[in-house]
Amino acid sequence: MASRRAPIAGRYTAEEVALAARNRGMPLEALRHELTPPGLHYLLIHFDIPPADAGTWRLRLHGSFKNSLSLGLEEIRRLPSTTLRVTLECAGNGRGQLAPRYPSVPWLEEGVSTADWTGVPLAVLLEKASPREAAKEIVFHGADRGFDAGVEHHFARSLALAEAMRHEVLVAYEMNGAPLPPQHGAPLRLVVPRWYGMASVKWLQAIEAIDRPFDGFQQARGYHFRRRADEQGEPCTHMRVNSLMAPPGIPDFYTRRRVVDAGEVALAGRAWSGSAPVARVEWSVDGSWQDAVLEPARDLCWRGWRAVWTATPGEHELACRATDEAGNVQPLDAPWDLSGFGNNGAQRVHVTVRP
Amino acid sequence: MASRRAPIAGRYTAEEVALAARNRGMPLEALRHELTPPGLHYLLIHFDIPPADAGTWRLRLHGSFKNSLSLGLEEIRRLPSTTLRVTLECAGNGRGQLAPRYPSVPWLEEGVSTADWTGVPLAVLLEKASPREAAKEIVFHGADRGFDAGVEHHFARSLALAEAMRHEVLVAYEMNGAPLPPQHGAPLRLVVPRWYGMASVKWLQAIEAIDRPFDGFQQARGYHFRRRADEQGEPCTHMRVNSLMAPPGIPDFYTRRRVVDAGEVALAGRAWSGSAPVARVEWSVDGSWQDAVLEPARDLCWRGWRAVWTATPGEHELACRATDEAGNVQPLDAPWDLSGFGNNGAQRVHVTVRP
Repeated sequence: MASRRAPIAGRYTAEEVALAARNRGMPLEALRHELTPPGLHYLLIHFDIPPADAGTWRLRLHGSFKNSLSLGLEEIRRLPSTTLRVTLECAGNGRGQLAPRYPSVPWLEEGVSTADWTGVPLAVLLEKASPREAAKEIVFHGADRGFDAGVEHHFARSLALAEAMRHEVLVAYEMNGAPLPPQHGAPLRLVVPRWYGMASVKWLQAIEAIDRPFDGFQQARGYHFRRRADEQGEPCTHMRVNSLMAPPGIPDFYTRRRVVDAGEVALAGRAWSGSAPVARVEWSVDGSWQDAVLEPARDLCWRGWRAVWTATPGEHELACRATDEAGNVQPLDAPWDLSGFGNNGAQRVHVTVRP
Repeated sequence: MASRRAPIAGRYTAEEVALAARNRGMPLEALRHELTPPGLHYLLIHFDIPPADAGTWRLRLHGSFKNSLSLGLEEIRRLPSTTLRVTLECAGNGRGQLAPRYPSVPWLEEGVSTADWTGVPLAVLLEKASPREAAKEIVFHGADRGFDAGVEHHFARSLALAEAMRHEVLVAYEMNGAPLPPQHGAPLRLVVPRWYGMASVKWLQAIEAIDRPFDGFQQARGYHFRRRADEQGEPCTHMRVNSLMAPPGIPDFYTRRRVVDAGEVALAGRAWSGSAPVARVEWSVDGSWQDAVLEPARDLCWRGWRAVWTATPGEHELACRATDEAGNVQPLDAPWDLSGFGNNGAQRVHVTVRP
């Protein structure tokens, strides 16, 4: 098994294509839906979808808790539940646009979606188990197993105890009103709103309290912003402010290049940030920026925006960028990262306008 | 817009990657399910998913019929209905493994899935509309529109009248017991069992009877087996005999290479053919072939197979191939086609067995 992979540039490898075919993006025309239609939510599956039997599945809470627990799905369903509409984005979204880029899932722009998740607040489970005084972090263990960079492991991530106690963190058993489908973590998964998707551990089989920082592969080595391979870097946490538009007009099959008729063209898209509510969306034609009209804001969920473009014949480049209430603004160019994380550079859409 | 694209070899283009991210494959571990879980069915969307309002959608039957019709969804739902479990495969499945290959969706092996489709038999609608004596073909018009090879068109395909009257051809409004999702043709689509997926026109808005062969782009130019660009070629019709296995063991994240422990390893997969029932599946280790155990056959639906491999430490190559009752056998090597259609070459799975 390979050690850490060297960045590449230019055309894409067969491995990248195989990962793109497995790990589904959301077609951008689905931005017309606030709630991504079932089956169109993006997927990032590190290893294989594990077999799972909801009837015998157990969720164990163990480690630095006063009470160890082992709960079946029906017991979990009897606990207080809530439903949240949550936008999730893959930390590697936009990786495939970087040059050079890290060989991994070559997302262009489509690794983001929104779903309604129903489950028990994680805090309810943690209070039942009662972390000991010494407990520092809560580790979430998935059932999916494989190798990365030569290291065999199951997928596991941690949160600091205070972060894990946030009321909006769920142990979810339903997506869009139906039991979780296999590919989204059936029968149980974590959902951590505001964070990039890697925090929302799927096929959740154990919750462990530990007294030290978690050193698992996906926590200590994976999912760090780095500029050089020899630095520890900064961990990926909250989603950076970002926005997309549904490309207008009709596409060419192969190039996906757009053609629109001259005249008034309705533009629409969505914007999100894990740090603060979206405060502003701007859009541009050929570098000339103006404000978009915003739909009402919703907590945890992307915010719709729209604009009307009076399109004139010729070749044009559209773009959009969002600003959040914390003052974070999308950069016009992709911020480079060794592993391709956190690319929130402004989307560009090339359009041919015909008379 | 480009004219016909020249074959390429080696690494993949950004356009191929964008098409792979949009056009979802079925992860091969989902072969464990006879019925592909909702959201994991493969997708081939030529243009954009069109907006559609089920409340106002009309299906028109026009052209060389004695009775022109315009039907709303509720009217169609009141007609006799049936549910069929159908395996569909993209005609371009396996294209990405060819060298050189046509620049298009670079499917490796994952463009095949099975769903339960519910709808009205097409024959019921055709009998209501009553084709005139002169009617030769029935054309199915989708609402999706775009360009291919410089030609603007909406997606449309035809069937010979006798083929269209087969009782198993459906105008479907449900998939797996729920209304069609947008990406699978909501609110109405054609389902043509035994044929490659291009025949199953999505977002169906008109059914037209014509007295001559249909000359639409996707019928007369697209979807032909060709060895040279200057030949008309043979139209793609029924799915060629084909089979897959779920790769055993656990994967490496990037390469998807498999690792299994020495000893007995359960192998399982599925086989299908549009021409005749599957009669035999063989599997091999390092080129030594033996028969797999077959599950009961089901009409229109892939057939499960299984085997037990006593794995010995080292590097091994697994493969499988099917034979149908018409005597068609999968080739060991990919049959080359200019556009990458009909690749039913035997799947190869490289496995590292550890002691």
